Amino acid sequence: MPAPILTLTTDFGLSDHYVGVMKGVILGLCPDAQIVDISHEVSAYAIAESAFLIAQSYRYFPRGTVHVVVVDPGVGSDRRPIAMKAAGQYFIAPDNGVLGMVFSREKHKVREISNDKYFRKPVSRTFHGRDIFAPVAGRIAAGLPAARLGKVIEDYVRPSFEKPKQTSDGTWVGEILHVDRFGNIVTNFRARDFPVFGELTIGRTKARRLVSSYAEANAGELVAIAGSSGYLEVSVKQSSVSRKIGCRAGSACQIRV
Amino acid sequence: MPAPILTLTTDFGLSDHYVGVMKGVILGLCPDAQIVDISHEVSAYAIAESAFLIAQSYRYFPRGTVHVVVVDPGVGSDRRPIAMKAAGQYFIAPDNGVLGMVFSREKHKVREISNDKYFRKPVSRTFHGRDIFAPVAGRIAAGLPAARLGKVIEDYVRPSFEKPKQTSDGTWVGEILHVDRFGNIVTNFRARDFPVFGELTIGRTKARRLVSSYAEANAGELVAIAGSSGYLEVSVKQSSVSRKIGCRAGSACQIRV
Amino acid sequence: MPAPILTLTTDFGLSDHYVGVMKGVILGLCPDAQIVDISHEVSAYAIAESAFLIAQSYRYFPRGTVHVVVVDPGVGSDRRPIAMKAAGQYFIAPDNGVLGMVFSREKHKVREISNDKYFRKPVSRTFHGRDIFAPVAGRIAAGLPAARLGKVIEDYVRPSFEKPKQTSDGTWVGEILHVDRFGNIVTNFRARDFPVFGELTIGRTKARRLVSSYAEANAGELVAIAGSSGYLEVSVKQSSVSRKIGCRAGSACQIRV
Repeated sequence: MPAPILTLTTDFGLSDHYVGVMKGVILGLCPDAQIVDISHEVSAYAIAESAFLIAQSYRYFPRGTVHVVVVDPGVGSDRRPIAMKAAGQYFIAPDNGVLGMVFSREKHKVREISNDKYFRKPVSRTFHGRDIFAPVAGRIAAGLPAARLGKVIEDYVRPSFEKPKQTSDGTWVGEILHVDRFGNIVTNFRARDFPVFGELTIGRTKARRLVSSYAEANAGELVAIAGSSGYLEVSVKQSSVSRKIGCRAGSACQIRV
Repeated sequence: MPAPILTLTTDFGLSDHYVGVMKGVILGLCPDAQIVDISHEVSAYAIAESAFLIAQSYRYFPRGTVHVVVVDPGVGSDRRPIAMKAAGQYFIAPDNGVLGMVFSREKHKVREISNDKYFRKPVSRTFHGRDIFAPVAGRIAAGLPAARLGKVIEDYVRPSFEKPKQTSDGTWVGEILHVDRFGNIVTNFRARDFPVFGELTIGRTKARRLVSSYAEANAGELVAIAGSSGYLEVSVKQSSVSRKIGCRAGSACQIRV
Repeated sequence: MPAPILTLTTDFGLSDHYVGVMKGVILGLCPDAQIVDISHEVSAYAIAESAFLIAQSYRYFPRGTVHVVVVDPGVGSDRRPIAMKAAGQYFIAPDNGVLGMVFSREKHKVREISNDKYFRKPVSRTFHGRDIFAPVAGRIAAGLPAARLGKVIEDYVRPSFEKPKQTSDGTWVGEILHVDRFGNIVTNFRARDFPVFGELTIGRTKARRLVSSYAEANAGELVAIAGSSGYLEVSVKQSSVSRKIGCRAGSACQIRV
């Protein structure tokens, strides 16, 4: 049997020991786990961005993978931890919307994680990644049936990012989901929903051409591209468009067809 | 038998190839090792910060884990490499105090690593992580008895960070051990030593309230909290207090009870 | 049999999900792979820097290791993917020079990767790391014979970095390959080619002394050192020389003997 795979997506950064400690807890419960980092550089407390990153990633992992997402502004309050099964994989996260873009794509079953016998004790008020999410994920990866965690719920948080709003005939307002390392701006306009393209506006800047690869763009030209994410992205070839425009995850954008 | 676990804590950063090369050397000697990064973003040459990070991490790893700490301003001089056994785990590091917060908590036995037959040859003057610490750690993880490394010593470096000094009745002066990714400031005041709380001062800024979770704090309020580290931390809810105050690892702080 | 080892060197950074997704694809094809990150912080599109990083790393990995290098400004154009065997190891990369410093050191055999049955379909125009390089590397690590990928070629790109030019008797002009996390500047002057040392100039700054370890340098003194890379490096003890000089990968430097 292949080693169980777990992925981690957090806003913990890589300077602190938090991620390493979560891995120690996981390996103590599931010693042969293959642990893969998706990102630990999610903007602090940015739920939509983490929702985007995990939704872009899970389908490239084998069945049975356990995905742990800990972007959790409500840690220490009474928001619930949840476990979801979808697409043959498991997702362990706080109930705050971080799994929202997986919900909206896949048949899924969500459980509240209420059985505290699988937690590390004492559970701290500030680090549920270590005391709740890592040990639950480690046990699921090691074979614990999800039904032991708690009962199925329907009233989990359903966020509304990812749905551009139509403002007038042929114009939609959306938002920036993520700015990648190359300065490419990922919008929440799905490429397949906008096959006809007029212009895409972010701040005072407009992309007027939809290209099918970076190689087609002219140096310095602002273009839109159907990115590998499935969303329209705005780019300048071999340069950082986000630095030029000064936008970030959460900023508004607009498309006209 | 579960795969041996090794952890790495360095100030090498992640842009260079140094950490990858250490892992290559380790895997050449211990092919089934599970290697976990604690942090490679320790401030350059910051011994107290690395001491804090490893001390906050080791107890979450299983018995037999091998922890490698390479923050080593004296590389190339005659400071000794050491191997410590404590809490059923191994620690491989330069003899410069980086293991000081583990010493002060656990029964321990320290050996000088003098048997150079376990080193990579030739040993460079500038990269003992690759030539001494990684190969020794890989062999220990693969089962080499620690006694082969060299003899037990008592005169290893014992640093004095972590001991706040009382200046007047009810006032102690301490120092900042670490500033985490969220801008939380970790002091060297142990929460259990200061059950009664008056105020905690950093620069010109004072925290006047001790809360038990971030959820209790008001937006923008500067509070102290008994962090998951066991130390008092100073935070502003969902904001970076360190950016506001402008302090860093090594800065002074003061508590009054 | 020990687990297959793969290394990754990219300019994808660690904030995005790109690296995690490549690992998911690799583990789906080679579930027991040991995946090691060399660096994902190569300057965007910096071919010489990635060539340096992989050339400094591969020899510390066991025979049979598969190295994947994805620094690929031409993604989406018709540049070819290649697979090289050298030093008992495999290298999977775009044909743009990133393997140039391995070519120049080792006997090698290069194949064009033309057999698209080993690609993920559909192949996106923008993310060959996921759709071409990761799946090919995962299959090679799992035992696919390299001959299945495509035919041997001789006309792969041979870059010319790494060859300082002599300008007058005793003077050579070279370039900066990499600036490391400590601010040390790595030049393309090989230490063994310059056993007699006069001075090394970068911008308006000169290093006049060649030392054999950092411990020999005086505080604040600019020195040259034969770094663990085998190249001459310029350093200021316990300080960042690159910040002082303001240079970066690609800048010119000069040596006089």
